[in-house]
Amino acid sequence: MRLHPRTRAARESIFPRMSGLALRLGAVNLGQGFPSGPPPPFLLEAVRKALGRHDQYAPPAGLPPLREALAEEFAVDPEGVVVTSGATEALYVLLQSLVGPGDEVVVLEPFFDVYLPDAFLAGAEARLVRLELGERGFHLDLAALEGAIGERTRVLLLNAPMNPTGLVFREEALRRVADLAQRHDLFLVSDEVYDELYYGERPRRLREFAPERTFTVGSAGKRLEATGYRVGWIVGPKEYMPTLAGMRQWTSFSSPSPLQAGVAEALRVARKEGFYEALREDYRRRRDLLLSGLRSMGLKAYGPEGTYFLMAELPGWDPFALLEAARVALIPASAFYREDPPPFLFRFAFCKSEEELYLALERLAAVVNFPREAQTGGLPE
Amino acid sequence: MRLHPRTRAARESIFPRMSGLALRLGAVNLGQGFPSGPPPPFLLEAVRKALGRHDQYAPPAGLPPLREALAEEFAVDPEGVVVTSGATEALYVLLQSLVGPGDEVVVLEPFFDVYLPDAFLAGAEARLVRLELGERGFHLDLAALEGAIGERTRVLLLNAPMNPTGLVFREEALRRVADLAQRHDLFLVSDEVYDELYYGERPRRLREFAPERTFTVGSAGKRLEATGYRVGWIVGPKEYMPTLAGMRQWTSFSSPSPLQAGVAEALRVARKEGFYEALREDYRRRRDLLLSGLRSMGLKAYGPEGTYFLMAELPGWDPFALLEAARVALIPASAFYREDPPPFLFRFAFCKSEEELYLALERLAAVVNFPREAQTGGLPE
Repeated sequence: MRLHPRTRAARESIFPRMSGLALRLGAVNLGQGFPSGPPPPFLLEAVRKALGRHDQYAPPAGLPPLREALAEEFAVDPEGVVVTSGATEALYVLLQSLVGPGDEVVVLEPFFDVYLPDAFLAGAEARLVRLELGERGFHLDLAALEGAIGERTRVLLLNAPMNPTGLVFREEALRRVADLAQRHDLFLVSDEVYDELYYGERPRRLREFAPERTFTVGSAGKRLEATGYRVGWIVGPKEYMPTLAGMRQWTSFSSPSPLQAGVAEALRVARKEGFYEALREDYRRRRDLLLSGLRSMGLKAYGPEGTYFLMAELPGWDPFALLEAARVALIPASAFYREDPPPFLFRFAFCKSEEELYLALERLAAVVNFPREAQTGGLPE
Repeated sequence: MRLHPRTRAARESIFPRMSGLALRLGAVNLGQGFPSGPPPPFLLEAVRKALGRHDQYAPPAGLPPLREALAEEFAVDPEGVVVTSGATEALYVLLQSLVGPGDEVVVLEPFFDVYLPDAFLAGAEARLVRLELGERGFHLDLAALEGAIGERTRVLLLNAPMNPTGLVFREEALRRVADLAQRHDLFLVSDEVYDELYYGERPRRLREFAPERTFTVGSAGKRLEATGYRVGWIVGPKEYMPTLAGMRQWTSFSSPSPLQAGVAEALRVARKEGFYEALREDYRRRRDLLLSGLRSMGLKAYGPEGTYFLMAELPGWDPFALLEAARVALIPASAFYREDPPPFLFRFAFCKSEEELYLALERLAAVVNFPREAQTGGLPE
């Protein structure tokens, strides 16, 4: 008895794997992107209140108060919102609904790791457009993006603020992407799970420029520092949403009811009480701390304009040798590239406490000028 | 821009639809299978305790304490357990992992409504084996089951205690199914979400007879009266489980952490404090109340040996006319048959309060001898 060949998509993701190793070795975990602290008290309180009141099936499209709260945020009708079990399910359901064998999805590289298996499991090809990496960081060449669009392209998948590069796209770029999509009659999937995490001006949303074809993906886990709550959403053109809700009823039927009710209330509190502004200030401080720490060691580190990630180079190191020698867990660039990742490039998550960031810097400083290439692959695969 | 043709699987399921109509019309909802009361206090308490402690990503295979609690229940290693976002995701991931185009899945009819879209979305054919319906209720003809197995069959999908019929399979039948699977080298998927809801002897599990090829699907929502918590599981042969965990990481990544932690504790309390015994007693009483009420109206009603469902005939009625005339929501047999459902057959959920059951009986009694066939299709589709 053999499993179906599509299960070759089932390789263990590097993220939980590094977290597991970090835990086992007592390492500082700057790998997987989850906060080391608890979510804000107003979210915990809102969920506590929902327990015993919202315990049975929610409708597949989402608990009405959550759809309404999101509709308000995005200035759309509640019918334009479908709640999902995390942004992961949102992306899975979108690709299943939009593409199939013979179709192509254009994806920027480096990419968040679910995009490629999502395209593969839908039977479609991912066509990669690699960002340029220069002295000043990552850059999207819009001509290269246009060049990647072919006869069989049906979806452009963007991610902004972008994981792992921290890139935010300017209005001019968004307009050009929207224009491309209109000219080639493509769907746009815009992964905006870090929409409240930016360090400059508030970024515009892709959907503003092509509302008729854009599906915006979001995440309460990322917004409210509760990655384990599995509440995400899709905001998109109303006429497609009943179908998306109909598809997601087969993957997980509905999202957890008490967490949906809690998130509905917490989204309103967060907006009203300036939670996101405070969070951005907080993350800006941690970003600067980590950036200046890495640069003071003489390392090349690229400052992000959004997200709680940054990329930096650790010449001569691989992630397992580093984990063993420095007890710091990082995600290697290879997790975000299909092939030929830039050498010695790592993603650092700074959604961790300042103590952890200082400790990581201290540990890195102790080893970073003594690369131990001999230990490459030193830890069990 | 058109959606992919596979989205024809996305029709709205009758279950949330009837619930929505019931709510709108103030009807007694004996349709969708969720309890009308809250979950037991020990579950709410356990989840409350987990909030603020288990808020970030769990590993895709499940939170370790939950895998351990389930391993104990099923007398397997924790590596033999994968946690999912409800039994719905468990079934979806299993069919995606086991079958593809050209393969067949043998399914008993009447079936729970996710099986057919799950097979379709995996690209496989569902081969139906229809239960016989006689004076004494539903009956599985094992020769017919064997006859349905062909060259391309890869999976037998069973459900016991069975929704919607309430059937429980005897040891002799399970042995023969296991034997068939061994002879034809098939996987067995055994949907046992009602495993603690039986009214006779404790049923044996299919996996006891073919542990090397059986995947058992379970649900905390069904066990602990919290259908909105989205915590389910697969118990199966250890060598396949990392792949199943790897597949489910693309559909919803992981299940809600605080609910997993709460369920882990609650499963132990439930076992220790005789929760399931008390629940069975309670449901037996409600079953008998509903059965005798229906029979006293002269209706044909089939007594279930498990689950909180029973099937009964309401000659001359369709569900929408009934909803309007009696304000009682039921699920028509057509939801469980691909074609030609037995006429005027309905599924009644008795996981509702005694007050609701009495009210439903009273309302049904007032109309049931005056079928209004003229109103067929009276409510908007």
